[in-house]
Amino acid sequence: MPPAQTFQHIGIISRPRRSKLSAVVPPLLRWLEERKIHVTYDEETAGALSSLTGFRTRQQVAAESQLLLVLGGDGTLLAAARVAAAKGIPILPINMGSLGFLTSFMLEELYPALEDIFAGRLTISERVMLHAELLRGGKTIDKQSVLNEVVINKGALARMIELELIIDNDFVCRYRADGLIVASPTGSTAYSLSAGGPIVHPAVESFVITPICPHTLSDRPVVVRDTSNIEVKLSTGTESVFLTLDGQKGIALQATDLVRISRAQELLKLIQTPNKSYFEILRNKLKWGEA
Amino acid sequence: MPPAQTFQHIGIISRPRRSKLSAVVPPLLRWLEERKIHVTYDEETAGALSSLTGFRTRQQVAAESQLLLVLGGDGTLLAAARVAAAKGIPILPINMGSLGFLTSFMLEELYPALEDIFAGRLTISERVMLHAELLRGGKTIDKQSVLNEVVINKGALARMIELELIIDNDFVCRYRADGLIVASPTGSTAYSLSAGGPIVHPAVESFVITPICPHTLSDRPVVVRDTSNIEVKLSTGTESVFLTLDGQKGIALQATDLVRISRAQELLKLIQTPNKSYFEILRNKLKWGEA
Amino acid sequence: MPPAQTFQHIGIISRPRRSKLSAVVPPLLRWLEERKIHVTYDEETAGALSSLTGFRTRQQVAAESQLLLVLGGDGTLLAAARVAAAKGIPILPINMGSLGFLTSFMLEELYPALEDIFAGRLTISERVMLHAELLRGGKTIDKQSVLNEVVINKGALARMIELELIIDNDFVCRYRADGLIVASPTGSTAYSLSAGGPIVHPAVESFVITPICPHTLSDRPVVVRDTSNIEVKLSTGTESVFLTLDGQKGIALQATDLVRISRAQELLKLIQTPNKSYFEILRNKLKWGEA
Amino acid sequence: MPPAQTFQHIGIISRPRRSKLSAVVPPLLRWLEERKIHVTYDEETAGALSSLTGFRTRQQVAAESQLLLVLGGDGTLLAAARVAAAKGIPILPINMGSLGFLTSFMLEELYPALEDIFAGRLTISERVMLHAELLRGGKTIDKQSVLNEVVINKGALARMIELELIIDNDFVCRYRADGLIVASPTGSTAYSLSAGGPIVHPAVESFVITPICPHTLSDRPVVVRDTSNIEVKLSTGTESVFLTLDGQKGIALQATDLVRISRAQELLKLIQTPNKSYFEILRNKLKWGEA
Repeated sequence: MPPAQTFQHIGIISRPRRSKLSAVVPPLLRWLEERKIHVTYDEETAGALSSLTGFRTRQQVAAESQLLLVLGGDGTLLAAARVAAAKGIPILPINMGSLGFLTSFMLEELYPALEDIFAGRLTISERVMLHAELLRGGKTIDKQSVLNEVVINKGALARMIELELIIDNDFVCRYRADGLIVASPTGSTAYSLSAGGPIVHPAVESFVITPICPHTLSDRPVVVRDTSNIEVKLSTGTESVFLTLDGQKGIALQATDLVRISRAQELLKLIQTPNKSYFEILRNKLKWGEA
Repeated sequence: MPPAQTFQHIGIISRPRRSKLSAVVPPLLRWLEERKIHVTYDEETAGALSSLTGFRTRQQVAAESQLLLVLGGDGTLLAAARVAAAKGIPILPINMGSLGFLTSFMLEELYPALEDIFAGRLTISERVMLHAELLRGGKTIDKQSVLNEVVINKGALARMIELELIIDNDFVCRYRADGLIVASPTGSTAYSLSAGGPIVHPAVESFVITPICPHTLSDRPVVVRDTSNIEVKLSTGTESVFLTLDGQKGIALQATDLVRISRAQELLKLIQTPNKSYFEILRNKLKWGEA
Repeated sequence: MPPAQTFQHIGIISRPRRSKLSAVVPPLLRWLEERKIHVTYDEETAGALSSLTGFRTRQQVAAESQLLLVLGGDGTLLAAARVAAAKGIPILPINMGSLGFLTSFMLEELYPALEDIFAGRLTISERVMLHAELLRGGKTIDKQSVLNEVVINKGALARMIELELIIDNDFVCRYRADGLIVASPTGSTAYSLSAGGPIVHPAVESFVITPICPHTLSDRPVVVRDTSNIEVKLSTGTESVFLTLDGQKGIALQATDLVRISRAQELLKLIQTPNKSYFEILRNKLKWGEA
Repeated sequence: MPPAQTFQHIGIISRPRRSKLSAVVPPLLRWLEERKIHVTYDEETAGALSSLTGFRTRQQVAAESQLLLVLGGDGTLLAAARVAAAKGIPILPINMGSLGFLTSFMLEELYPALEDIFAGRLTISERVMLHAELLRGGKTIDKQSVLNEVVINKGALARMIELELIIDNDFVCRYRADGLIVASPTGSTAYSLSAGGPIVHPAVESFVITPICPHTLSDRPVVVRDTSNIEVKLSTGTESVFLTLDGQKGIALQATDLVRISRAQELLKLIQTPNKSYFEILRNKLKWGEA
């Protein structure tokens, strides 16, 4: 954790249309300004102020900051992760609703957490990200780093699709399924879990490959090293298929498209609460250990 | 099984673009004509003849027939099931590719099967069908009977949707999932199985309700009586959601839509081979009992 | 529901070593005596009284009663179910701890429930039971009716066992697994659910056959009609295998043993609370619909 | 791979009672003797010779060898793995029946494989092993290294047991289940897979923790780093519970016992066929990609 004095520039990224924000943002800005911290924020945060001025794009917010404060849920954090990781700055995730896997700080922990950060007391969890590249006719037509997962799935009206999985140039199998998820350990508790994937601790250097509703019942989730070069080829020609990245960006795929997934060079630096362990959050979210 | 003499009118429905058809259809027509049977057929069957004349819509084919001969796979049979069940006539399903759950007669069994039917020797399995009704603003805007399953699922780019399940006016639960499948026993070995549902023998008078990638991990498949009145309400407003019937018809749903599912009045009369039991087909399709 | 006056003889069966009992049983006996009801009870109930006298075996308690009051959890109810069903008398299940699938009356509902019963207001849910028969060398050496499930499973130190499943004289498949569960709809939410089986509503006339840790990953749970004659044959010779009935009785099996399972002639008459529907209990027990 | 000249001492370990052995062992011994290789073997191998002389315990065989030739299936290999890993010598696994996950050389590949080894051509896959330690009253009363998995499970007649899982001194959760499996990546395709665990590639430095028939349906398999210190505490006092190691050794546990699992210091050196990739064996064993 860098020492306190380095955080003279803090950015704020907020979840859109969150009514609580108007009670949270103004005092937060005053609190930061009193400490001579320069603050930039996105349009959603500005929406909680009386005048909608002075906001920047999220990329700009990250570009001008040494720390990103994210007010929202896991969805907002996924979006913020991309700009923060690209810049290499840490994120302090503040939960605006129910406890998230990623946003483990509750709203009432906001100021104590900031004071801990300034005192150099909080720890950072470095999370591996996935890098997805879409190749069409051998040319890269899109690429992006994501925190949780890369999904290739069928359109709602499409029938089962066929995908071919190749790892490090080695043919693995052909899936007939609704789709395929390639998730990071961080993403293993998100969509992949709903599709039947295992929980993978963030320290396991791996990716989980989980088929969605596979036709072949023995098509179980596979965990591979995160140094693997994962390629997914469409075998289906006529059905509508989409590539979605962290559930936020969707691209229509064509019959000969290839999706290449590897470990991203950047890491997400996630500030963590010392009050809740990884397993405590799991217990809470998955309702383990209750009656 | 009705006695042989009643089948003086036979209809043929075929799978589109099946190259084998041109070798199968002409001799079949001659064989039937030699036996003084009046034959009608759909456009796909006509495609296997040298001249594309004399075909009818599938509804017309069924309307003019006492028995429907289906040349194709499970998909073709699902389409044929609707017109056959509405008319109350039996289907003889002839497999044109790999063994299907429904199309258990192999191509080489075609003529022996027809002779068995004419001799009154084959048995019929009556399959319960689902009746789906789509209500918008309290009015029925679409309704249809299907053999396998009614699916409500999210669009490819949509996020998790919320659905409310009500059975016989009793609130069951709220699903946060990719979608929900309501399957007949016949459909239990199709999409529902891929989504984690159980295999339900056709004689069990029931429907299986299987969530697709549910967020709540304890949202297990539920089997209810087929006399149940099942209602699925959309709780999600903004995401794109679709109703699909036997994987063949898709309707975009709106925020206040209600899908009502019950047992259809009509039954599908499926002619069965005495050579393969229900469980033998299961073993074959699911590769049970092999090394 | 029989009219109030028929319940002049009530039996009480309790869960062993339940400390709460000493506060519950004495006032309950007084309350019943005030109403001129003749009460008999088992040894466990007597343990909650100052003097351990006058108790009977559970069979005797049932034999002398027109209604069985069960103070305990689902385990106690399973034991009571056998004697009650054999006698044909209903059970009023009172929960002594956390809510059970079967024991849906809370302790505070005890007296209101009794008054409702005497007034003829409560309803009875008739639950199908399983009849298990163990054949060795063609001879029946044990037989019993159970409410939840019949389990054939391996000893802790044994390796995978092989079982052959035959339904209505039709070979279904050979399982290589830790064991096999045949459950009633009532039992579908007990052990079968933990092993991956579906939830089956009590009104579905069926049994669920769920393998335990099957080697073949496509060995999914199968739901069959409760009129089926289910036979399980041991294919393994050397490993230790046991037959357990409702988790309460265990019998060591031998290499040539056959377990035959069918619908029991008797039904369990379970008095139900009108305050909680079947699905409400499910939601509560499976923590559906929570955050 | 060490150069050819180092293998002057080869040991043979065989599967008991394998009728094929009598055709395989004598010519193999002659072939090795012709190449001036000193051979030792266990009692099971000796059983395939006309005279039962000169055999050694498996530990002795390993102690006197530079390479272990295992004639058998995955079960024989698990036993051989312990002595080979303790000595640090590689294993050449020759399949005597159907293809195994570990025994990927077919019988007809025996001599070509030996020639490849002598020529320094084959590659070795180093497999992480688990070290299990049983503590009673704070004292280690048993410890062993195993290749596949450590299992804590209930006796056949026991009811559900309760286990507490602690990882690196951090409480994870309390399981109410039939048992718990802690598997290595190599073991992930064995028992853990049957219990619902994921497939973990051997290169992922991790252990899989898979509950057996968990009562809480959200108790999903968890993948943790293999540097983790895993502790399993019995919370159940009265039920019979056993610790089994690679399915071969069973120890009855007592109420206050603690099982500690960590990465073993030794590795198994498994000689691999260049003809079948890891995923090809998976496809074959799990019947992926077939009709």
